[in-house]
Amino acid sequence: MDFPKEVRINEMVLRDGLQLEKKILTVEEKKLLFSSLKDAGVKSFEFGSFVHPKLVPQMATSGELFEEIAGEAVNLVALVPNLKGAERAKEFGVEQINFVFSASDTHNMQNVHKTTEQSIAELKEINDFCNQNHIVLNTTIATTFGCPFEGEIPEERILAIINQLLDFTIHQLSLADTTGMANPKQVYELLTEVKAAFPEQNLNLHFHNTRGMGLANILAGLQAGVTSFDAALGGLGGCPFAPGATGNVCTEDVVHMLQCMGIRTDIRLDGLLEASALLETIIGHPNNSYLLKAGPYDRKYAVPISQ
Amino acid sequence: MDFPKEVRINEMVLRDGLQLEKKILTVEEKKLLFSSLKDAGVKSFEFGSFVHPKLVPQMATSGELFEEIAGEAVNLVALVPNLKGAERAKEFGVEQINFVFSASDTHNMQNVHKTTEQSIAELKEINDFCNQNHIVLNTTIATTFGCPFEGEIPEERILAIINQLLDFTIHQLSLADTTGMANPKQVYELLTEVKAAFPEQNLNLHFHNTRGMGLANILAGLQAGVTSFDAALGGLGGCPFAPGATGNVCTEDVVHMLQCMGIRTDIRLDGLLEASALLETIIGHPNNSYLLKAGPYDRKYAVPISQ
Repeated sequence: MDFPKEVRINEMVLRDGLQLEKKILTVEEKKLLFSSLKDAGVKSFEFGSFVHPKLVPQMATSGELFEEIAGEAVNLVALVPNLKGAERAKEFGVEQINFVFSASDTHNMQNVHKTTEQSIAELKEINDFCNQNHIVLNTTIATTFGCPFEGEIPEERILAIINQLLDFTIHQLSLADTTGMANPKQVYELLTEVKAAFPEQNLNLHFHNTRGMGLANILAGLQAGVTSFDAALGGLGGCPFAPGATGNVCTEDVVHMLQCMGIRTDIRLDGLLEASALLETIIGHPNNSYLLKAGPYDRKYAVPISQ
Repeated sequence: MDFPKEVRINEMVLRDGLQLEKKILTVEEKKLLFSSLKDAGVKSFEFGSFVHPKLVPQMATSGELFEEIAGEAVNLVALVPNLKGAERAKEFGVEQINFVFSASDTHNMQNVHKTTEQSIAELKEINDFCNQNHIVLNTTIATTFGCPFEGEIPEERILAIINQLLDFTIHQLSLADTTGMANPKQVYELLTEVKAAFPEQNLNLHFHNTRGMGLANILAGLQAGVTSFDAALGGLGGCPFAPGATGNVCTEDVVHMLQCMGIRTDIRLDGLLEASALLETIIGHPNNSYLLKAGPYDRKYAVPISQ
């Protein structure tokens, strides 16, 4: 069992975590969460998205939030589903975007009314736009590990899509398990193949804990040599197709596991747990963190019966 | 990443799962759960324990339950904490027991008012008793991966304890993560050592999902070559020291992960999900299963928007 010595965690709570919450947070509340996470040592954030505010009202204030937190010495990424989103992001001075499209035609059609090919064609324009405007371009392939409509996505399709992306300047490529269908064997095998075929590409993994396999999938990703993972504070998020199902893999649970295994993240667990408690106060309901309930593995209990 | 082709799951819900439930189930209710699990293909059960009924009233009917289900073509194991428990089990005709003691003196003192050494001394008597009465003896070392009072338990202590057990006829040795402190690296390293030092010993792993690492720890155990794992339907159980913390690793989530990875258990997932729903009805509250909420990975959803 070989693991990297150091791992980067990209905090998704402000985007993927909040976009399915009933309560729409104010810019002030998002800023509080951001500051608490930054104090805990988090250095990379997907802070919001530039999508139609009628479709995702939770993200309508992403530009305002950016103006408030820009200038902090952290990585701030905005999700965009199309060129229009990239243009809006630029208007606010965003310097790094994450273009998302699906490996599944059906899923992509549901999200952006385009086939996968049509989205890749749009990526060409976005790539040009980013190059012209000195914007760092990340890309996420959603439903890489399975589609809730189509089922399995063949490995060859994922490899062929990545091959098409080589024409563009993609700083980081995320493979996303959008609805929590991935299993550790699949993760290890696909990532081993992707790393062999595209050794120069920065890779990142995005897991949901829908079926409880989030941490096991991260373990498999680590063994395949991946060193960058998305996670959301409190395991917030979810899947619009699976009511009640758990969301993103939980930042504090991921950081705790990595810490137990001696893998560095430079994030302080006690700071994350403070942020996690703050999150519950702000959203007004319990989150999905195991660590917030149980405390870290080295938490000691008083001996109840004297000996 | 190497995995065994086949794995045995020992169902713990009737013992570890129910022993912290507020509601005390009737023998009839336990029988319903047992039948539902048996119909799903479960072949190995820890069905109850012979402990003082005042201390664990949930287990007071273990003998009666055994009389009702004995004769079924499955493996029925009773937990016992001492010789007296073994004698009580024999009175009901139980043919397989699981003697539990802790690697941590403090934890063992809390459970049975004995040091670890004193419990191992008692194991000698239990071993003789089992040999005389043709009872199969399993043994579990609790707090193998950490103690909520003492903290870390050195690997050398675990190896030394197992070495002492070689004097006895132990059919299966379980290493238990009693309060969910184990991490995958630790599991892989310890199990690799134990297997190398004691290659003839049947091994089993018992994880709690207290800090969300249950499935990741099973993945590590599989990679170390372990082929037998405890799990409890609905992830029931818990830890008296960590209120609200999750219990045993959840049978349906474990079986689902193994199935996704192509590892045989001979348990039907749809049958388990029926048993899991029945469990919620009987205990009167939601259980901790991810699968019951989200359905299996290959669950297909209708396409919401026509294309």
